[in-house]
Amino acid sequence: MSTTYVAAAGVVDDRCIVRPRYDVADDGSISWAGNSDDRGAPPPAERVRDFGRALVVPGMVNAHSHAFQRAIRGATHGRAPDDPSDFWSWRDAMYHAATTLDPQGVYAVTRRAYSEMLAAGITCVGEFHYLHHQPNGQPYDDANELSWQVVRAAADVGIRLVLLEVYYARAGADRPPLAEQRRFCDRDVDAYAGRIAALRAAGVRVGIAPHSVRAVGRPALLDLATLARSLDVPVHVHVSEQPRENDECQTEHGCSPMQLLASVGLTDRPRTFTAVHGVHTTAADHAVLADQHVCACPTTEADLGDGLLPASELRAVGSRLAVGSDSNAVIDLIQEARLLEMGERLRSGRRSCLAPDERGRNLGAALAAIASEGGASSLGFHHLGRLAPGYQFDAAVIDLGHPLLAGVDPTHVLDAIWTTGHAGLVSATVVGGREYG
Amino acid sequence: MSTTYVAAAGVVDDRCIVRPRYDVADDGSISWAGNSDDRGAPPPAERVRDFGRALVVPGMVNAHSHAFQRAIRGATHGRAPDDPSDFWSWRDAMYHAATTLDPQGVYAVTRRAYSEMLAAGITCVGEFHYLHHQPNGQPYDDANELSWQVVRAAADVGIRLVLLEVYYARAGADRPPLAEQRRFCDRDVDAYAGRIAALRAAGVRVGIAPHSVRAVGRPALLDLATLARSLDVPVHVHVSEQPRENDECQTEHGCSPMQLLASVGLTDRPRTFTAVHGVHTTAADHAVLADQHVCACPTTEADLGDGLLPASELRAVGSRLAVGSDSNAVIDLIQEARLLEMGERLRSGRRSCLAPDERGRNLGAALAAIASEGGASSLGFHHLGRLAPGYQFDAAVIDLGHPLLAGVDPTHVLDAIWTTGHAGLVSATVVGGREYG
Repeated sequence: MSTTYVAAAGVVDDRCIVRPRYDVADDGSISWAGNSDDRGAPPPAERVRDFGRALVVPGMVNAHSHAFQRAIRGATHGRAPDDPSDFWSWRDAMYHAATTLDPQGVYAVTRRAYSEMLAAGITCVGEFHYLHHQPNGQPYDDANELSWQVVRAAADVGIRLVLLEVYYARAGADRPPLAEQRRFCDRDVDAYAGRIAALRAAGVRVGIAPHSVRAVGRPALLDLATLARSLDVPVHVHVSEQPRENDECQTEHGCSPMQLLASVGLTDRPRTFTAVHGVHTTAADHAVLADQHVCACPTTEADLGDGLLPASELRAVGSRLAVGSDSNAVIDLIQEARLLEMGERLRSGRRSCLAPDERGRNLGAALAAIASEGGASSLGFHHLGRLAPGYQFDAAVIDLGHPLLAGVDPTHVLDAIWTTGHAGLVSATVVGGREYG
Repeated sequence: MSTTYVAAAGVVDDRCIVRPRYDVADDGSISWAGNSDDRGAPPPAERVRDFGRALVVPGMVNAHSHAFQRAIRGATHGRAPDDPSDFWSWRDAMYHAATTLDPQGVYAVTRRAYSEMLAAGITCVGEFHYLHHQPNGQPYDDANELSWQVVRAAADVGIRLVLLEVYYARAGADRPPLAEQRRFCDRDVDAYAGRIAALRAAGVRVGIAPHSVRAVGRPALLDLATLARSLDVPVHVHVSEQPRENDECQTEHGCSPMQLLASVGLTDRPRTFTAVHGVHTTAADHAVLADQHVCACPTTEADLGDGLLPASELRAVGSRLAVGSDSNAVIDLIQEARLLEMGERLRSGRRSCLAPDERGRNLGAALAAIASEGGASSLGFHHLGRLAPGYQFDAAVIDLGHPLLAGVDPTHVLDAIWTTGHAGLVSATVVGGREYG
């Protein structure tokens, strides 16, 4: 049965309006959206959901998640001499968690992370999934055992999922995988392609995800580019998160990670490629990303000491920005988008760096769009991430009675949320017309 | 009547323990603190407050606030060519708000800001107060009219206040105050000292606050140093927030702001001086701050594009760190302390930069201490900011049932709160044994 949603305020297409109304069809898509006064008589009360003193914004899309890393939230900041003190030693601690999870453990921690995402107004997640096999590297009886656990957790929580299946092959140039990396590795690209085919046959949305230029050699990158092209699915890769990755790529290939990925054809199709992180990229790299996506993960990139993304330079050449919760130490895309803007201010000494955007939106609306349609585009969704007819009704409902928003003029409320707020403002989440929270 | 507070977990002195008990005397001070099992029989049930599944941490101390700027939250991120695009144009927008407030308006916005602080676990605020006179610069009939409004707002909300009374005299070297700065300015230091005396006579805790080396010339700085010394009260000054302030000071005085402040005697008394911001300070400046305080305001310093504090360098020479909500765009000292650590990670590429601290505390406890005892010390409180016998029982109660903390091992919970959390975790606040929220 179709449902009509109303609230005190809401985003419709690119504008924030008062008394919005969204008519949502049985399939979860928006059939009409605009000001209630422009629509005539409301439907019977039992078919109306009134959010009251609330603001409806597009459901957020988390373009980069490692759900299992939620298990080590807060656990990697110790002080002993051998405790994680930089990215690489943090990785050791994270690997320890990765090697100890069984299928039920993967399900449980993923479900916990996704529940927290949904409560934070996130309606869709791109899971950059690399826990594939048994700890010793042997496939489970079903080679997709752990992927199914992720799929099941997403379905049970009610969040949309794109499974960015990771291909992982080595510890680095001429270095076989470390013992703790074995469960990430498929036998070869053919075995990986078989897993992808089985997931797709079951209706799972997938993306092709070479882990990084460190973990995948050039021949496999070529094969993965061919596979992605033949399936016409998105490609996501970790790119230039740490200077060491750039140095090693320069030594092995004589170019930057982004140049290598372009040379194997992974960026040939416009708007299908996402560089995750991209912190240590240069102008030449940005040129390759002009009609592609970059996924920033500011809370993780600060936590791990990665650095600040050159977001303004990427925007200037036409890159589309998205955000991700990555390590899931923090699950809050309002903060991710806010810190992306704040990082630009710290880099430049200027304000309102990411606005107006290419659609002329003010800062709050521009940051909201990065956290919603930016992610949807990165994950290959064409009718997600906006509140407009034809799109799925995925929404985050913001409590306008929250003390953080008291006294804020309605014309500035989107700016206030996205420059000062956090996920605690979200009072309900709707995925395709199904309400949670 | 004395009260006993218990909870599932809590900080006592430098440790986080299970089943803590705090016995609090009628005057709000802690008479005993430790594990419940070490204390014998509990008092009668009507004298016990059990916070249940919660963690008790020291009430936070906000060392730098401009309460009235809460009025422009979210309102300064527009996109028109003349909208605030850097620190100095933001200041124009802020001045516009400053010139339009009448006494009732000052009370109302201050009360709103302080209510939000209390809900965020902040039990004490240092108000860097510079709205003194009528918009045209004429004193009100009572020259402390607006200071009383701040005092009244704090009392009505129930938050402790140190009124850091600002002395403001000029727009810059050889430049009289701008029209919109007139209400900040006292006739001279004698008139200012008269206001201070009246406030102190009424029992208000005050600090001496020359606004900045831009707004106060050298002769007045000398007089203010003498005044602060004679009253034995804390001194707070905005220092090196923007490069332009350094440049102008170099031109006028041939030295940095911090060197000028030291040369007039403002830093002679150990542990009584607080440099607010200190973003663009050098090693020579840090030497002057070795036994003093620096108040970081990371969310504001990002918002305004100021830059990142050299916190590790200051810690290395012995400076005490505090945090402040400053512009009150964000009111959340968990985030301020967290972003102070994250800024260090971005500057250094390392992790856990601010721990272990001088008392050997782990990161979470070290950041919690910056947000509590660091601020208390900066504001001149000797028995505030710690949960130990003899200290006031000022506490923030953290909800351990919050989804953000689900599954976090108890040994890591302080780290998790202070590296990933926000003020939304605070479920109740206690000020001197009086509970709010």
